[in-house]
Amino acid sequence: MRTQMSTDKLSNPSRRPKRNGPGRPEGHTENREKILDTAEKSFATHGYAAASGREIASAANVTQSMVNYYFGTKRQMFREVYLRRGGRLAAERMKLLDRITSRGQFDIEDVVRAYLIPPFRLQATAQGRYFLRLQARLHAEPDELAFELRREVYDRPVRAYVGALQKLLPHKSEETLYLRFAQLIGIYLYILSDAHRIQEISGGKCSMPPSDSMIEEIVVFTCAGLRS
Amino acid sequence: MRTQMSTDKLSNPSRRPKRNGPGRPEGHTENREKILDTAEKSFATHGYAAASGREIASAANVTQSMVNYYFGTKRQMFREVYLRRGGRLAAERMKLLDRITSRGQFDIEDVVRAYLIPPFRLQATAQGRYFLRLQARLHAEPDELAFELRREVYDRPVRAYVGALQKLLPHKSEETLYLRFAQLIGIYLYILSDAHRIQEISGGKCSMPPSDSMIEEIVVFTCAGLRS
Repeated sequence: MRTQMSTDKLSNPSRRPKRNGPGRPEGHTENREKILDTAEKSFATHGYAAASGREIASAANVTQSMVNYYFGTKRQMFREVYLRRGGRLAAERMKLLDRITSRGQFDIEDVVRAYLIPPFRLQATAQGRYFLRLQARLHAEPDELAFELRREVYDRPVRAYVGALQKLLPHKSEETLYLRFAQLIGIYLYILSDAHRIQEISGGKCSMPPSDSMIEEIVVFTCAGLRS
Repeated sequence: MRTQMSTDKLSNPSRRPKRNGPGRPEGHTENREKILDTAEKSFATHGYAAASGREIASAANVTQSMVNYYFGTKRQMFREVYLRRGGRLAAERMKLLDRITSRGQFDIEDVVRAYLIPPFRLQATAQGRYFLRLQARLHAEPDELAFELRREVYDRPVRAYVGALQKLLPHKSEETLYLRFAQLIGIYLYILSDAHRIQEISGGKCSMPPSDSMIEEIVVFTCAGLRS
């Protein structure tokens, strides 16, 4: 087991542990991505504690020593799984917000919608849905690793979005806006954690609307809450 | 391991597996409650997969055969841990709603507040906080056991509360009210899953207000969302 591992920051998500020369396995990027996909599924399905490196290696059709070569520890593998897609999520959120604010005229509906679109897009693919489950689990994990990962993925976008909202709602205190933004986060994480949730609580009377309608539903609800 | 266990329903939370005669351990109720408290802490801290019956027995200062005697399987122990406090939560919610609706005149703020008070009360004790963590974890678990337990604890109160809201907001469809009630559930679960969440996302600029203020903050936000 290697204990010293690269600690990729989101600011440089493309950095990879490089090892040139005879020790470096063939098909570097493909294998690494394949292991990350498999680990994402495994962590999402079984949770961090129950997922095993051996099973991940077997499901990814690689040797366990290759998994060790790339990630060293289960903790490091989890970190990289989360930061890979979490980094893209953060980047998309920043891009959408920049696009809106650069237009000059925008309203709080635009801001809230931009925050919701990237995670809802993840529902479209099986691999994206694994990440959403993993993320819901992470938000229920109050340990150090969870704190650290959430900070890396969430902090910058949340502050940028709250900053944009502050310009539109100048009479609200920063504290109020953070309290309300936290409620928006709670809403979308809960809704995305399980597609059957609405069906479940309504006893089958209602079901989850298509992504676009659900986003608009949250936009209406949250913007009324933000303005109140 | 006993495989046939009583499946206490919430409608009869006081039912206990009874075994009279020489096989029944001394201090029946005390031991059982002590094991449930310890298991609640353990499941909250380590998660379902990582918690072990042996460690729970050791921490509760009882033998593992006593744990097996009362609960049979880890799954059954988790079930009883969750239903014990979840059942009280559901009962309190029903009681508060009855109190409000029997007054004749009430508004949606009263209904939302009544839904939030019981889980926020759990923050006051260490054991209650363990349950809140366990509950946050459960809502991130999309498996069969989680579905079943959530149904038993949540269904009845959610339907009663949505029914009360429907009388106050007769122009809203039942579907809209369920979609909005789901957002309220997402908010309070997220806020209660970790007392440092607000501090974290705001980069230390804000912190979680005292329970009563946080409840009022959610009431204002959610009621604006419900009316919109």
